[in-house]
Amino acid sequence: MLKLFTATGTIGLACEITLQEAGADVDVVRMNFAENAQRQPDYLAINPKSRVPALVCDQGIITEAPAILGYVAQAFPEAGLAPLDDAFAMAQLQAFNSYLCSWVHPAAAHRYRGYRWADDPAAIKDMARKAPEVFAAAMGVIETSYLRGPWVMGPSYTTCDPYLYVLTTWLPRDGIDMGQFPKISEHFARMSEREAVKTVLARIAA
Amino acid sequence: MLKLFTATGTIGLACEITLQEAGADVDVVRMNFAENAQRQPDYLAINPKSRVPALVCDQGIITEAPAILGYVAQAFPEAGLAPLDDAFAMAQLQAFNSYLCSWVHPAAAHRYRGYRWADDPAAIKDMARKAPEVFAAAMGVIETSYLRGPWVMGPSYTTCDPYLYVLTTWLPRDGIDMGQFPKISEHFARMSEREAVKTVLARIAA
Repeated sequence: MLKLFTATGTIGLACEITLQEAGADVDVVRMNFAENAQRQPDYLAINPKSRVPALVCDQGIITEAPAILGYVAQAFPEAGLAPLDDAFAMAQLQAFNSYLCSWVHPAAAHRYRGYRWADDPAAIKDMARKAPEVFAAAMGVIETSYLRGPWVMGPSYTTCDPYLYVLTTWLPRDGIDMGQFPKISEHFARMSEREAVKTVLARIAA
Repeated sequence: MLKLFTATGTIGLACEITLQEAGADVDVVRMNFAENAQRQPDYLAINPKSRVPALVCDQGIITEAPAILGYVAQAFPEAGLAPLDDAFAMAQLQAFNSYLCSWVHPAAAHRYRGYRWADDPAAIKDMARKAPEVFAAAMGVIETSYLRGPWVMGPSYTTCDPYLYVLTTWLPRDGIDMGQFPKISEHFARMSEREAVKTVLARIAA
């Protein structure tokens, strides 16, 4: 059985939704970040990077959201979550998820976790102030150039969709007007209607 | 024929080495960042994110280093650059490359490109000061927990290797003592002896 380590408000949600889409039998462990559970020795043995998500499989541990999403797509091919046999289409999917993990997610993180990259409180404050502008610009690139519709990659739902969905939930949290992103807003509404998303959100709220 | 857009000193080098390893027929375009070539309309039509690398294929354009590396591995399977049919092993590879693109590379980038995340010159200066410490800590996690040896994933050379190699070249540039990373140093020496690396470096120097 799979075991997913995740935490509320993190990108782990994209992995939890994807596992649900795949119909995977998974035990979900919700970490308490307020108590620094991710920095305790028992968790560092699972993920020395002290982050979530982490997926424990029979063969070992997988960290990093794009890798977990890729694993679920490949290990549950019947769920059709990625164009596995098409090198170019797979690269398009990977490019989208890489942009989210390397640029969009860190852009948003500068609002709350500036201490990762600076020590001066004034510097951390300046990053927090600028972060929504950088985050919104990055989502603007997706709106204009990469979200094909109805799903990110076009007609087929893929692992890009729950990943974008989670980042979209962070826009209003950071005071960013969703009205400037009509395609992303429509994608968000479409995602909200999926059974897997409803099931996971109900489980978290329970 | 493939066309790779790259620039000196960027992670595009990892893609160029990988294309060389695969024996791909590729036209390499070296962008002049000093002249802001990446922000000109002709390049923005290729990559609206104004970054390198970008790989132009018959089917279209692939951006983001992990996606290009994944594409080369899948499109040239005879080169054996990734364990394509093993979902768990592929996830390990992807997790490594995701860590590099989402955490290690941005950690280093805060030394030179702090303006991406702050406006205050003092904030940008504080990020530049702290960046080598964050970059070194991230490489320390690789040294301790992820570099299996002789190659990143163990006995087989994969796309993780040129990616780590390029980040390793940035350590001395940023004044970070390589002596604290014996496994990474050994990996770097091993990479430097590969024919593909020698060929690409000679081509760049020519």
